[in-house]
Amino acid sequence: MRPLKAMLAGTAAIVAAQPALAQQNELRDWALDMFSPVPATVPALEDNIVTPEKVELGKALFFDPRMSASGVFSCNSCHNVGTGGDDNMPTSIGHGWQKGPRNSPTVFNAVFNEAQFWDGRADDLAEQAKGPVQAGVEMANTPENVLATLNSMPQYVEWFEESFPAEDDPVTFDNFAKAIEAFEATLITPSRFDAWLNGVDTALDEQEVAGLEAFLEAGCASCHNGVNLGGNGYYPFGLVERPGAEILPEGDKGRYAVTETAADEYVFRASPLRNIAVTAPYFHSGNVWDLRTAVDIMASSQLGADLSDEDIDAITAFLGSLTGEVPEITYPILPAETAETPRPTGEVMPN
Amino acid sequence: MRPLKAMLAGTAAIVAAQPALAQQNELRDWALDMFSPVPATVPALEDNIVTPEKVELGKALFFDPRMSASGVFSCNSCHNVGTGGDDNMPTSIGHGWQKGPRNSPTVFNAVFNEAQFWDGRADDLAEQAKGPVQAGVEMANTPENVLATLNSMPQYVEWFEESFPAEDDPVTFDNFAKAIEAFEATLITPSRFDAWLNGVDTALDEQEVAGLEAFLEAGCASCHNGVNLGGNGYYPFGLVERPGAEILPEGDKGRYAVTETAADEYVFRASPLRNIAVTAPYFHSGNVWDLRTAVDIMASSQLGADLSDEDIDAITAFLGSLTGEVPEITYPILPAETAETPRPTGEVMPN
Repeated sequence: MRPLKAMLAGTAAIVAAQPALAQQNELRDWALDMFSPVPATVPALEDNIVTPEKVELGKALFFDPRMSASGVFSCNSCHNVGTGGDDNMPTSIGHGWQKGPRNSPTVFNAVFNEAQFWDGRADDLAEQAKGPVQAGVEMANTPENVLATLNSMPQYVEWFEESFPAEDDPVTFDNFAKAIEAFEATLITPSRFDAWLNGVDTALDEQEVAGLEAFLEAGCASCHNGVNLGGNGYYPFGLVERPGAEILPEGDKGRYAVTETAADEYVFRASPLRNIAVTAPYFHSGNVWDLRTAVDIMASSQLGADLSDEDIDAITAFLGSLTGEVPEITYPILPAETAETPRPTGEVMPN
Repeated sequence: MRPLKAMLAGTAAIVAAQPALAQQNELRDWALDMFSPVPATVPALEDNIVTPEKVELGKALFFDPRMSASGVFSCNSCHNVGTGGDDNMPTSIGHGWQKGPRNSPTVFNAVFNEAQFWDGRADDLAEQAKGPVQAGVEMANTPENVLATLNSMPQYVEWFEESFPAEDDPVTFDNFAKAIEAFEATLITPSRFDAWLNGVDTALDEQEVAGLEAFLEAGCASCHNGVNLGGNGYYPFGLVERPGAEILPEGDKGRYAVTETAADEYVFRASPLRNIAVTAPYFHSGNVWDLRTAVDIMASSQLGADLSDEDIDAITAFLGSLTGEVPEITYPILPAETAETPRPTGEVMPN
């Protein structure tokens, strides 16, 4: 059950000056045309029924560092549920102390993204979950070794049987990914902005409401819309004005690598904006640490807009209202290893 | 509150054949001369009052990877509360993918150890906590940078103020360590062996009782005694027969590095045995993966005993009864970074 404090998100905290009621209702109508509040229940997944057993299994897998070749990294290493669902680094450090190519996105509310990864190369969270486990610079494991690890621990086999009761041989890499997807689908973080969208005027203060208005008026919501204020469309980074190479490195052509279409050069998925205030640094390159600066860069590069300092401050304040309440997560007690469990190896394989 | 299932540790699960009651009572008297059950409450710490606020702060610090220079490692990385309180590796991988010199010991029940580390170089958990944070091959941080990190986040400062209410300037490296010590003092894992020591005959099965008897008769409890069945005395490894270099590497002279006394060459703290079945691999070198083999090596190297296969099996079974119930731990939501938070660096400094 969701704790009451989440359902009351921010309603008691804010006593600051409020804009006139009529204005707020008009703005709310506009906002509801562009955005949707997060639902109160876990959404249905395609071809993956969410059960409590599957969520518990997925949680164990999400936190288990033995899913990596070295035994060092779990999903939670780069998508830390204690720090906004990401790792607060420009790009993650992985197997052999290698650096990943792009900033790690938050796992929170990721279930609402149209597609996963900065270039949208995974259709859903199950497909996404298979990526980092196998990436040489991340967890550097293989599906075979993941399955050997899982099959070596009777407790894991039992949990797979309980999670996929209709299947004869439930310990598969597909089901490994589906269980993680089921757990991740529960990582929904209702925020003060949701309370406001749902009709609670006091959930946002005056500057935040002004920021929402500026956000809509400047056109930010052309790309950043939907439940996640982003995560559901692809746009060229530098549409109006190309940012510097530190922010938009020449070597990373974004979605072009997926579609091999010239029009997709330097095209990226619009970043989802929920919890953005606690998931610095910003952009796929992860080199901008300050949210206000990120807002400024977006305004000039994507909209060609020269926003006033007041508007940038207000939009930044509004984005802060998207920081949500994280569901309570009990740390899983993981199955014990056996003599058959493959040994961890920190060895770095040549490419 | 401790869950009922922990208080009933194993009493319902075991219906196997039981030794005669009189024999069990005699054995229990002997066992109670050598061992003590874990207490039901958190023990008092020297110069460190344990409060709920301090435990919560300590938990946040324990799980916070930003306490390492790179942002990759937290205390929980090598002392994972989901996998027996250790990391299931021969020796841990740390900053710059460097390997630590010795196997990571479990944090569970460590509060009952006479001293910390394999060589006892820290008197208590607070002193211990300062080590890995600063070790170049582990978290590679400095006290100054830890404090700068903590002071950059108002939520941490507030938590320190609540945890050390009598102090004017509570954000200190000493208090950082004390808070972690307070959290770690709560990591007590009552086991079926405790239930048996407390008088529940059915908590151990026949083989486990036989194993306890063999453990006592062979003299294992000369070194492995007290609450933790170890962790409270120093003994030469290879007292009777020196194990091979893979198990006892020549370069690591153990407690000699602390005392610089010739008699302390290859002397180590007797390993605490609680949760030993879930904390492979074994010994300070971490190269023995099988508990039965570890028992065999101990018998010959320390006692010169040639135990029967039956006795080794029984002792191994008895050691399994020391696997305890881990307290429920809610994953902490960590304070958000600010513009002042020092940036993570994976750079490896020259020695």
